[in-house]
Amino acid sequence: MTETPGTGGTVRFGTAADGDVGLLSPVSASPLVTALTGDRAVLAAILAVESGWAAVLEKAGLAPAGSAAVVASAAEAGRYDAADIALRARGGGNPVIPLLGDLRKHVTALDGARIGAVKAVHTSLTSQDVLDTALMLLARNTVEAVLADLKCTTAALASLAEKHADTLGVGRSLTQHSLPYTFGLRAAQWFHGLAAAGRQLGNVQFPVQFGGAAGTLAAGTVLTSGSATSPFDLADSLARQLGLAAAPAPWHTNRLAVTSLGHALASALDAAGKIATDVLFLSRPEVAELAEPRVAGRGVSSAMPQKQNPVLSVLIRSSALQAPQLVAQLHLAAANFNDERPDAAWHTEWPALRQLLRLTLGAAGHLRELAEGLQVFPDAMRRNLDLAGPLLLAEGVGAAVAPLLAEQDGRSGKEQLQAVVDRTLEAPASEQSGTYRRLLREAVPAQTLSDGQLAELLDPANYLGQAAGISRRILAAFPDFSTPTQNGANRG
Amino acid sequence: MTETPGTGGTVRFGTAADGDVGLLSPVSASPLVTALTGDRAVLAAILAVESGWAAVLEKAGLAPAGSAAVVASAAEAGRYDAADIALRARGGGNPVIPLLGDLRKHVTALDGARIGAVKAVHTSLTSQDVLDTALMLLARNTVEAVLADLKCTTAALASLAEKHADTLGVGRSLTQHSLPYTFGLRAAQWFHGLAAAGRQLGNVQFPVQFGGAAGTLAAGTVLTSGSATSPFDLADSLARQLGLAAAPAPWHTNRLAVTSLGHALASALDAAGKIATDVLFLSRPEVAELAEPRVAGRGVSSAMPQKQNPVLSVLIRSSALQAPQLVAQLHLAAANFNDERPDAAWHTEWPALRQLLRLTLGAAGHLRELAEGLQVFPDAMRRNLDLAGPLLLAEGVGAAVAPLLAEQDGRSGKEQLQAVVDRTLEAPASEQSGTYRRLLREAVPAQTLSDGQLAELLDPANYLGQAAGISRRILAAFPDFSTPTQNGANRG
Amino acid sequence: MTETPGTGGTVRFGTAADGDVGLLSPVSASPLVTALTGDRAVLAAILAVESGWAAVLEKAGLAPAGSAAVVASAAEAGRYDAADIALRARGGGNPVIPLLGDLRKHVTALDGARIGAVKAVHTSLTSQDVLDTALMLLARNTVEAVLADLKCTTAALASLAEKHADTLGVGRSLTQHSLPYTFGLRAAQWFHGLAAAGRQLGNVQFPVQFGGAAGTLAAGTVLTSGSATSPFDLADSLARQLGLAAAPAPWHTNRLAVTSLGHALASALDAAGKIATDVLFLSRPEVAELAEPRVAGRGVSSAMPQKQNPVLSVLIRSSALQAPQLVAQLHLAAANFNDERPDAAWHTEWPALRQLLRLTLGAAGHLRELAEGLQVFPDAMRRNLDLAGPLLLAEGVGAAVAPLLAEQDGRSGKEQLQAVVDRTLEAPASEQSGTYRRLLREAVPAQTLSDGQLAELLDPANYLGQAAGISRRILAAFPDFSTPTQNGANRG
Amino acid sequence: MTETPGTGGTVRFGTAADGDVGLLSPVSASPLVTALTGDRAVLAAILAVESGWAAVLEKAGLAPAGSAAVVASAAEAGRYDAADIALRARGGGNPVIPLLGDLRKHVTALDGARIGAVKAVHTSLTSQDVLDTALMLLARNTVEAVLADLKCTTAALASLAEKHADTLGVGRSLTQHSLPYTFGLRAAQWFHGLAAAGRQLGNVQFPVQFGGAAGTLAAGTVLTSGSATSPFDLADSLARQLGLAAAPAPWHTNRLAVTSLGHALASALDAAGKIATDVLFLSRPEVAELAEPRVAGRGVSSAMPQKQNPVLSVLIRSSALQAPQLVAQLHLAAANFNDERPDAAWHTEWPALRQLLRLTLGAAGHLRELAEGLQVFPDAMRRNLDLAGPLLLAEGVGAAVAPLLAEQDGRSGKEQLQAVVDRTLEAPASEQSGTYRRLLREAVPAQTLSDGQLAELLDPANYLGQAAGISRRILAAFPDFSTPTQNGANRG
Repeated sequence: MTETPGTGGTVRFGTAADGDVGLLSPVSASPLVTALTGDRAVLAAILAVESGWAAVLEKAGLAPAGSAAVVASAAEAGRYDAADIALRARGGGNPVIPLLGDLRKHVTALDGARIGAVKAVHTSLTSQDVLDTALMLLARNTVEAVLADLKCTTAALASLAEKHADTLGVGRSLTQHSLPYTFGLRAAQWFHGLAAAGRQLGNVQFPVQFGGAAGTLAAGTVLTSGSATSPFDLADSLARQLGLAAAPAPWHTNRLAVTSLGHALASALDAAGKIATDVLFLSRPEVAELAEPRVAGRGVSSAMPQKQNPVLSVLIRSSALQAPQLVAQLHLAAANFNDERPDAAWHTEWPALRQLLRLTLGAAGHLRELAEGLQVFPDAMRRNLDLAGPLLLAEGVGAAVAPLLAEQDGRSGKEQLQAVVDRTLEAPASEQSGTYRRLLREAVPAQTLSDGQLAELLDPANYLGQAAGISRRILAAFPDFSTPTQNGANRG
Repeated sequence: MTETPGTGGTVRFGTAADGDVGLLSPVSASPLVTALTGDRAVLAAILAVESGWAAVLEKAGLAPAGSAAVVASAAEAGRYDAADIALRARGGGNPVIPLLGDLRKHVTALDGARIGAVKAVHTSLTSQDVLDTALMLLARNTVEAVLADLKCTTAALASLAEKHADTLGVGRSLTQHSLPYTFGLRAAQWFHGLAAAGRQLGNVQFPVQFGGAAGTLAAGTVLTSGSATSPFDLADSLARQLGLAAAPAPWHTNRLAVTSLGHALASALDAAGKIATDVLFLSRPEVAELAEPRVAGRGVSSAMPQKQNPVLSVLIRSSALQAPQLVAQLHLAAANFNDERPDAAWHTEWPALRQLLRLTLGAAGHLRELAEGLQVFPDAMRRNLDLAGPLLLAEGVGAAVAPLLAEQDGRSGKEQLQAVVDRTLEAPASEQSGTYRRLLREAVPAQTLSDGQLAELLDPANYLGQAAGISRRILAAFPDFSTPTQNGANRG
Repeated sequence: MTETPGTGGTVRFGTAADGDVGLLSPVSASPLVTALTGDRAVLAAILAVESGWAAVLEKAGLAPAGSAAVVASAAEAGRYDAADIALRARGGGNPVIPLLGDLRKHVTALDGARIGAVKAVHTSLTSQDVLDTALMLLARNTVEAVLADLKCTTAALASLAEKHADTLGVGRSLTQHSLPYTFGLRAAQWFHGLAAAGRQLGNVQFPVQFGGAAGTLAAGTVLTSGSATSPFDLADSLARQLGLAAAPAPWHTNRLAVTSLGHALASALDAAGKIATDVLFLSRPEVAELAEPRVAGRGVSSAMPQKQNPVLSVLIRSSALQAPQLVAQLHLAAANFNDERPDAAWHTEWPALRQLLRLTLGAAGHLRELAEGLQVFPDAMRRNLDLAGPLLLAEGVGAAVAPLLAEQDGRSGKEQLQAVVDRTLEAPASEQSGTYRRLLREAVPAQTLSDGQLAELLDPANYLGQAAGISRRILAAFPDFSTPTQNGANRG
Repeated sequence: MTETPGTGGTVRFGTAADGDVGLLSPVSASPLVTALTGDRAVLAAILAVESGWAAVLEKAGLAPAGSAAVVASAAEAGRYDAADIALRARGGGNPVIPLLGDLRKHVTALDGARIGAVKAVHTSLTSQDVLDTALMLLARNTVEAVLADLKCTTAALASLAEKHADTLGVGRSLTQHSLPYTFGLRAAQWFHGLAAAGRQLGNVQFPVQFGGAAGTLAAGTVLTSGSATSPFDLADSLARQLGLAAAPAPWHTNRLAVTSLGHALASALDAAGKIATDVLFLSRPEVAELAEPRVAGRGVSSAMPQKQNPVLSVLIRSSALQAPQLVAQLHLAAANFNDERPDAAWHTEWPALRQLLRLTLGAAGHLRELAEGLQVFPDAMRRNLDLAGPLLLAEGVGAAVAPLLAEQDGRSGKEQLQAVVDRTLEAPASEQSGTYRRLLREAVPAQTLSDGQLAELLDPANYLGQAAGISRRILAAFPDFSTPTQNGANRG
């Protein structure tokens, strides 16, 4: 770069021509993510909208016959210099304006037959029409790929839920052991969160935008006057052309479509983040109930040759921790959409929405790999369950036994059993299992509860409640997410 | 309060007994907001859940006959000291635990017939069941009141849209005048945002929570074993009892219900914030197109006796600027819901959700008053429209006239007209109207366009596109929001 | 409350007169927090500013002799109905305006000698002067109490660092075991974070605000004209009167003082959150290296009688997870401070700042209790360290041994040792310790490294680097935080 | 790209090889911003740290003589494929690991003399050491460039403050006219905010990171054992080598340096955002007090040929609206820095910090251009001031006249004057000026106040308070920001 007076001493590390390739965002560094959400994808989406519009106009008889084909050819993304357009975008504050200049030049150059194809370019549109529609197009493509991965993940989780319906472990609340649990139910609840978020994401609408410079369709009205078509027809036609949803009216100042998309993406990341956070804990050496799938070269450390880091979960969790701020950014934009086009809010929407799409797609790929290859260690689950010994069953014991005990010294059965627990907790941890069994036996007359009945009460496998039933209900509630229907997106 | 060693010099301003009454949040300081969302409402909602549960158990034959009535009497909120419960809540990290202690005492005391009514209290529930359900109850009540106000607001906006369908003004984008506009369309777009958010809010589900200590329904299974009922039946029965939605499975670790509620509330505030931001600008002295309804004592300043501040809009906007962070807080909680009950995330959800409810209800009341009493000044709208003079119509002139012009010196009609604009902009602002008319007349031969035709082109009323049609489509898309159906909530 | 048409069916749980007492925010439910940050404290702070101003004016001869005493008496907080003022605050959008009305009435009533004491009330001030100054006063008091607690915490952590300088444990990165570590260094790094944040918090400035209605000191200039004093003198005098910092100029539109305070508070919560998050993990049953201090009634569960939840850490972490959004709110306000007083941004600052103060003070008290009573289990630390066996020392072995090995078959010493690690990892986990020792012995000739030397290399106590030295440097860098100097605030 | 099963129907817009060039973030699309903050700058910064470390080791006699030169040559950024490294970074979760592999290969290849230069590469470092230090390096360079621009901006604002010290306008609060004001004071307050933020930014420390794999400096201790140097010396030497600050201890888990940098950057954007928001309003057609500098090609619209958008301000404001969320992200990371290296929090820090740097630098360049070329229209300021007429002076009139009036019918002078205001406000807006003058004249006896004295009171130029004095105090408080000392960065 040229010399810059005033920053003489500044070390310049990069050069202007280089783009960001994801060096600081490993979760979303992937060919698929770049292909669907990168700046070149943005450029291509904008061009697809302009090209689609030319087709709409020609079909409606509002542009010269043959112009759509010329525009389509001119709109090949390879013809454009994204970096140069980005720099020129500063002039008007958005990339559509400089891109349009280039597009018109290419159309004119390609219009060998001089049919006036340039008349089909952007006529009666405003740049917000194009950019809003282009981002919806980009979002739809990305969401489609996310859903493909999500469904592979939920299918894998459903399998785990079924396979491990009887795999005993421990439930945890506020970090402490609460009650016996099954790994199957844990997998089913992971499924639950992800499938519910996936269903919501699958219902998101991607509407076309067409309002013209002030949202009145003024230029579109002039354009269509005297023709058989209306500006509303053109908007619907563009929606069909691009595979987007029709919009009853311009939504240039009402951003519910954008915030709802953001909410759906963040919800998917919420569910993914919950899973990753659990896996991170459950694969700690002290816990060792799960391990990430091993792949050569993954999880390595630059300093510690023996270390295997749960990198998939780290990356997924890093996405989930970023999504909330991006959702906030979208709402903040929506609440500040002043006038008929706002004085900055719109500009803050673009990067936030794109980043949400990118993080979600990146995380979805890693999550799929995690779910499909998760290593499960039932022995460790059982070992951890046994840490607390029979004390863990005190709730169930209380429920079953308290009603059987007579009042003693004014203390109810429930209070007597709480006293057993309290006295047990005074013993050293290593002796609490034995102490509890002994004190409990002393507190409950054998004629009330035989040794065999007591042993059954103290078997965690007998205190699982509806673990299996809940899992089945969850899977049944999302049939479209519980069986694998297609290959996911991120394995390209 | 007692003396505190170590902070000897500290000035103590308050005393422990005093609660917050909204001194720093004027937007939500109202009897209705307090009644529906205050700590006493929280207390009452918790008690309503416990009381509802007793009714469910008695109905299922799982609690002594007559116990529900005893519990209901014991659960009258007036019996409880919320401040004391709040202090004791630190022990277990949530308010249900200390409240339960008190509730059991009251039940025992009121159980004159010694039917054992205390067995109907909280049996097989965990505190998360109660608190999640209670907050859903509180939310449902609050959302109902919000919707009542919103529909009054949208009805008022629909009236404005119809009344001012032909009221000419100017559209603005990036702060500058773009094209002629109508106040009717502006009101219709305000309606659009609010009605769409309202519809979404009206579709929110408020599910009951029932999972027991670890989400396995273990205690509930013991409780119902040998009876004709199942824990799932109990959950459904509780939902009916409280008027909440049934849940297919416990959702203790999947917070989509909470984040979606948050999204719907924030979306309503987004729409409200957009309106308030517009009103704040449009009621500035330099613009003066709108004014807030005048009410004695409102808008006063402590220093400036003549000043009338647009306080309703300020308060509404202050709500809308706070909502994004609260939504982020809810997603952050959801993404961190580790284990079967998390180690802090759940605790961060409660105040964020309540604050969102509170801000939305507060803002909804002010917005209704604003919309119903908004003062509209068509003359000022017209005056502002005329500031830019006919230049504002350059887009339309270009569209209509460019095709009629022959190429001159290699310049297309469009380029000739752009040159007219460019030369006009070189003139002093005060002369641009005249200059534009003159240059345009010179550039377009009279045989191509007569003086009369030109004058028509330069009348802003002729360049409104589909302003009226868009408004009608918007109102038609939300019939349930366009007519007043009931009185709103905040006028109690 | 009175009936509300339109919400006929709505269940009303609370009544308007009740304030919030912290039911949904256990971390900050405490008499001290309420006393320093509650609405009554806000009210008292506002009154203290008005009263201080009267003193300033009288001292400068700008108010009748004796008026300060009358105002001081009238400004006793007990005379005011905070809830009523909050409701009336909606009229002007801030609580100063209605409070002033009441204050003037009280002053007039108490001015038995008719000295015209009311002339000393608020003269030449604007409500922003009063509220900004009052919140600085409230913040200063709260920060003082926070610092008192923080210093007790850091003193306790310093003791732990010294006591456990040689207590062996394992360091963890990305959840996996990395290298031998000491609990002393962990405590020292906790100290490090907290002391650095505490130092920053101790350096925060709390400036007085005085600008008048538009920030020009116009009324103050009229007031002081003809006197020996200037408006700047009055501002300095008020700062002295209240113990606040002087301000070179009004800062009504530049909110760096507020955002910097927010940053300092959030930084303290960041450090606290890091500690709490570590304690939550380290006190899990599977890890068991630490436990929270036991106190009767704390950590109880509503369903599980045996469970002891780490409630202090949960509450602290719940604060830390909320602070980031509040800081964002303050910056968002600052960036939107349009005009000479903004159209909503200011209003969003108050609750965010107060909530940050409240969460920090609440968390500081719990953190102090946690640090002072933390239970440390060196045996468990050692047990967890041994889980990975000597493999954990592979980095150190490599550094020490690789240079000693001759190249073999083109493989460097480093590569030979990595091969040892790789082969070890192929063995079952339970055999890896033995395998590693054996393969290592095979790979390194005894003449290069004796058995004794090898054993020393594989003793984790010999691979602690500068653990002790780093701890000492940290403690030495914050001498004012490493020794207990006073009792903290939260034990009142 | 290759075909991807499962997303067959998905339209792929981009290709994996393309990086982001700022298409969706016009505010930061600039060669300078890319050069200082782009992925290639990140890569170069990492390489600079590794290269600097080799120099440190060689200087300390811990690496073969000559190795630093080999590493320096191998570390030329041009040798590396950033996109490929980004993809491989997924394996370990950070870019240092794959880059190291490449670096070692290059070093070996370039080590023609076989001095063993590879031993100087990364020895005893961990990847966090490198990445933390590299980002500090990148940040320092960027902040230097930001400050260069900021100081040009503040110098320009200082000039405006001086030039327009007497330029009369109106102050505004809550959107309404409050009191007479000067444009000079407005410029001075803009300066105030920016200079205070700039001073804070200039005081930010950029510490070096060196802790090794677990933060114990274990490998560094082995490395330096037997030498005259210590690991602490090496860290200090690296700091000197790179021009960073020394650190008393590793700060790998205490992120105050990062959050404080974030706070300082966001504070600069807060101040910039306040200015931009004001300019956006003040350059609206209805207000017209200011205009952005005109530059060919800027502010153009794709639809409206006559429109000139205030693009600089829009871009600046778009930055300021994004910063709060990024600051929140940094605090959220800090509060979640669990263990000795966290399980995702660290990964969320990188993109947030870089984005903050990027937005600040981008905005700083635009702000400088805005301030240096701002068009000021004193006539419009005066016209807007006169909109409210003499009513705007009611506060001053009250202060000056109330004491002169005798009580009438039990009404104090102040009350009599308020009555004049109230009656004035009942008149139509267009008549309020005259009405106020008339009623005031009637209310105040001529012997109390002559016509001339009254006219003086009603001249806004006489009610400016300390406008000039405040400006001077502000400029004097920041002498290093009030005069231009160098050219800014963004004009390169």
